Amino acid sequence: MKSDVHGLILKLNCPDQPGIVAKVASYVAERSGNLVELAQFSDSLGGKFFARLEIDTRGLRCNLDSFINDFGDLGRSLRADWHFRALPYRMRTAVLVTKTDHCLHEILWRAQMGELPVEITSIIGNRADCREVASRYSIPFHHVEMDGDRRESGFRQIHALLLEQNVELAVLARFMQILPDWFCMEFRGKLINIHHSFLPAFIGANPYRQAYDRGVKWIGATCHYVTSDLDAGPIIEQEVERVQHFHSPSDLARLGRNCERIALARGIRYHVHDRTIIDGNRAIVFPD
Amino acid sequence: MKSDVHGLILKLNCPDQPGIVAKVASYVAERSGNLVELAQFSDSLGGKFFARLEIDTRGLRCNLDSFINDFGDLGRSLRADWHFRALPYRMRTAVLVTKTDHCLHEILWRAQMGELPVEITSIIGNRADCREVASRYSIPFHHVEMDGDRRESGFRQIHALLLEQNVELAVLARFMQILPDWFCMEFRGKLINIHHSFLPAFIGANPYRQAYDRGVKWIGATCHYVTSDLDAGPIIEQEVERVQHFHSPSDLARLGRNCERIALARGIRYHVHDRTIIDGNRAIVFPD
Amino acid sequence: MKSDVHGLILKLNCPDQPGIVAKVASYVAERSGNLVELAQFSDSLGGKFFARLEIDTRGLRCNLDSFINDFGDLGRSLRADWHFRALPYRMRTAVLVTKTDHCLHEILWRAQMGELPVEITSIIGNRADCREVASRYSIPFHHVEMDGDRRESGFRQIHALLLEQNVELAVLARFMQILPDWFCMEFRGKLINIHHSFLPAFIGANPYRQAYDRGVKWIGATCHYVTSDLDAGPIIEQEVERVQHFHSPSDLARLGRNCERIALARGIRYHVHDRTIIDGNRAIVFPD
Amino acid sequence: MKSDVHGLILKLNCPDQPGIVAKVASYVAERSGNLVELAQFSDSLGGKFFARLEIDTRGLRCNLDSFINDFGDLGRSLRADWHFRALPYRMRTAVLVTKTDHCLHEILWRAQMGELPVEITSIIGNRADCREVASRYSIPFHHVEMDGDRRESGFRQIHALLLEQNVELAVLARFMQILPDWFCMEFRGKLINIHHSFLPAFIGANPYRQAYDRGVKWIGATCHYVTSDLDAGPIIEQEVERVQHFHSPSDLARLGRNCERIALARGIRYHVHDRTIIDGNRAIVFPD
Repeated sequence: MKSDVHGLILKLNCPDQPGIVAKVASYVAERSGNLVELAQFSDSLGGKFFARLEIDTRGLRCNLDSFINDFGDLGRSLRADWHFRALPYRMRTAVLVTKTDHCLHEILWRAQMGELPVEITSIIGNRADCREVASRYSIPFHHVEMDGDRRESGFRQIHALLLEQNVELAVLARFMQILPDWFCMEFRGKLINIHHSFLPAFIGANPYRQAYDRGVKWIGATCHYVTSDLDAGPIIEQEVERVQHFHSPSDLARLGRNCERIALARGIRYHVHDRTIIDGNRAIVFPD
Repeated sequence: MKSDVHGLILKLNCPDQPGIVAKVASYVAERSGNLVELAQFSDSLGGKFFARLEIDTRGLRCNLDSFINDFGDLGRSLRADWHFRALPYRMRTAVLVTKTDHCLHEILWRAQMGELPVEITSIIGNRADCREVASRYSIPFHHVEMDGDRRESGFRQIHALLLEQNVELAVLARFMQILPDWFCMEFRGKLINIHHSFLPAFIGANPYRQAYDRGVKWIGATCHYVTSDLDAGPIIEQEVERVQHFHSPSDLARLGRNCERIALARGIRYHVHDRTIIDGNRAIVFPD
Repeated sequence: MKSDVHGLILKLNCPDQPGIVAKVASYVAERSGNLVELAQFSDSLGGKFFARLEIDTRGLRCNLDSFINDFGDLGRSLRADWHFRALPYRMRTAVLVTKTDHCLHEILWRAQMGELPVEITSIIGNRADCREVASRYSIPFHHVEMDGDRRESGFRQIHALLLEQNVELAVLARFMQILPDWFCMEFRGKLINIHHSFLPAFIGANPYRQAYDRGVKWIGATCHYVTSDLDAGPIIEQEVERVQHFHSPSDLARLGRNCERIALARGIRYHVHDRTIIDGNRAIVFPD
Repeated sequence: MKSDVHGLILKLNCPDQPGIVAKVASYVAERSGNLVELAQFSDSLGGKFFARLEIDTRGLRCNLDSFINDFGDLGRSLRADWHFRALPYRMRTAVLVTKTDHCLHEILWRAQMGELPVEITSIIGNRADCREVASRYSIPFHHVEMDGDRRESGFRQIHALLLEQNVELAVLARFMQILPDWFCMEFRGKLINIHHSFLPAFIGANPYRQAYDRGVKWIGATCHYVTSDLDAGPIIEQEVERVQHFHSPSDLARLGRNCERIALARGIRYHVHDRTIIDGNRAIVFPD
């Protein structure tokens, strides 16, 4: 552990039972950690417990590695899944794109601004359109050919890039390719997509046209984890916007870009701040 | 025409072509009508024109009947559907209910407040639960048995009531019965339903449970015209509300009631003020 | 303590320091209470700690009175203010009104529906307009004359009524009288008002007219605790709604009523569920 | 007029009287213009009429100059102010900045995307911080020193730049200088500012800190025309976002940036599409 660590995030989920908060909070207090933030959820329907703790470790009286390792006994006794992350950190992140760049711009700008603690390792496109944006921000761009029968080899190439860059997160920022099952499995919990509709409405192609045809009065966008079940992964965040009858499908696309940018930015933020816990088909999200 | 008429609403739709507004507005101006409000929509995708005019008729130099009748030549030349309504008016309206009364309360209160220009002719329930609310507001209540094999006779009874009461609108205020096709056809354009989901998401039974299972971050309600295609009629209005992972299905139902009340009240308001024009599966709505 | 008690809510605030959550949660766990919900906030700017705990007490191994009384040692050692409430409960509540009844209707309907755990002890009006609504719901109505020089005696009369009815909450549901200081002090933290603007914008008379004149694009309503500093008490909840240039002041008033009803209903709900903690001029609110 | 003109926008306002729509629409129809969109507002409180027309001129049977010039007779007879604009066009626009660049990014990206029909003539900063962003987009950057006693000369320099670049619009994209009266007068109706609060709440310095101290539950941003009365110019657009007690002033600033970007982008869009008409202290806005 590096010496500039000032805190830890602990994510934890386990079968619910009385006394979990007392045990975990006492674990922290006994070692002189300072619990800065605690969010918890007892899911009475599913019988599960979820929590996220943010701990100021500057006053710890043990060293950080011991703090993390010694937690194992408690974690196992709770039959928990848990995860520690040292602060400050920046998550190594790749961005996958096709042609449109509004979501990419949003991520790059927020990363630069310091709103998203990510380190963009590269931008990967199955088209070359976003190369210029990448170069403006001095980020490596990889053009991976995926048309026709090069689709499978393309995904193997992306797979190799993501492993090589050692990313913890790959964002599908309007990446217009359906991911193969093996790819979804390999990076399970590390793939975030932005879907241009208010899921589960308008699954499939051209959701803005579908929304127009159905005459809805709100459109939306959905940021979700990618699973092999297309458009059905756990939802992290959604944003909506009012529309009227006079908005054409292209107006809806224009207005929808706002929803896409906002929902994706928030979704990534929640993920990189460890504010999400995947629970089957749902995502527990502790927003900030 | 009664002498206290102070204005007219004209709704009109026809194939689009240049000059429609000029012709219609000139028709009004030449007879010294005063165009107080004009909303129009040229649908370039569908090639149609839609408009709603509100005309102050107190300075008309012809009588009102002539004004309305003489419009026929222009209307036919435009191959238009059109409709005049004299102001002030209150629309004769029946409310259909089952058990829950929040939407009913909303309608009754807004009608009493003067927000909705309706005259509630009766409340019709396939359960007796809302009888007391009806009596508080001194409105006739009809309990129509519809269980089991009495469903069809029940709808014939409701049909008779609506005709007898000469209603222009029947509001399904959480009326939990699927309407037969002949009933939908008979009252086409006069049946407004409130659906407890953000359609087209979560069609079918128990939408709040479906929303919980899917983990959406917004729920909603949809006010729509009823057609024989269940949950697929033209949408008049929708309202949405943010939710989080900790909201149980019953929390969603509680929060959703706000959406239902707001969306239904707005939808009825738009209908009774002639602010809606049905166009196939969509509704053109000129909100106020 | 009655035997049908199944849980407790504990509200607590104290100077911040490490270990508070551990101590409080351990207190609960050691006595076999089950922490169903925990919301906490460490205010790093103000150096304070706030928490709300919901405890299932059915498995307690001490009796409820001991559980509550014995907490005193811990509470004092934390230099905390704290408050326990046994569940289920209904808060004794009076509603103060003048003429308009939309907020009153909202409260009565939600109380009847079971959304608000309150027992309405009476409705008190400085006008008689709401007497009929009260009688529909079979709730005592008190008409208190307050015009001209009867204002002070009117408030003394209301004061007597509130004490006599032993209320924990008095809701000013569009009660159009400025409260005297002594009255605000006497019922500090027990008076909730709904203000018909998005405070702090448009303090003073006729906020919808002010909003029209200023040409704002959103209007709102504010639910707040009443203090002797008019319109400046801690804000519990606010709701907003989009408006446009064509909305007249009376349109704004109509649209604003939705905001008022929603914000007031939520605000009361947070208060009666002990989800609010007043902190100087701000309210910490743990929403559900 | 150039030959690639396909349409006209006509903005018009005048004292209200019967027959205006008929006259204006007939003027268009008689010359075989096609009225694609018409938005109007009869302000019954102020006795004024406002309209925006979008006219397809490809079938005009007179030439465009005659169409525009001959309108003068009608316009004068209505005692109207009016303005024609030929389509397509891009409005010459300068952007004024200080340090923060999120609003600048938003404008540049939307302009590049084709969402905003503007031609950015230059970026002018009283700090040099945004020079790099300007260079990424290959837009001239002018650093104008304005500190201390160079303020007045700085504004004269900006004045000269705006005239030289012949701009129709100058956007204050978080430009942290108070404009002198003569400057506001000179460019009246051509200066758009984004204010980082929901005006008229929190006028003055550090609105996010003020919002925190007041404990509001929504924050916002306001896009308005600049007048010599600081923060009091006609409001074009506002956007709001929910916040809670745990959001620090810097969280509010972060969340507020979303509001600022959205409100400013919409406000500029309405202005450059001639969808705004200033009416004293209010702006009539016909949104799309």
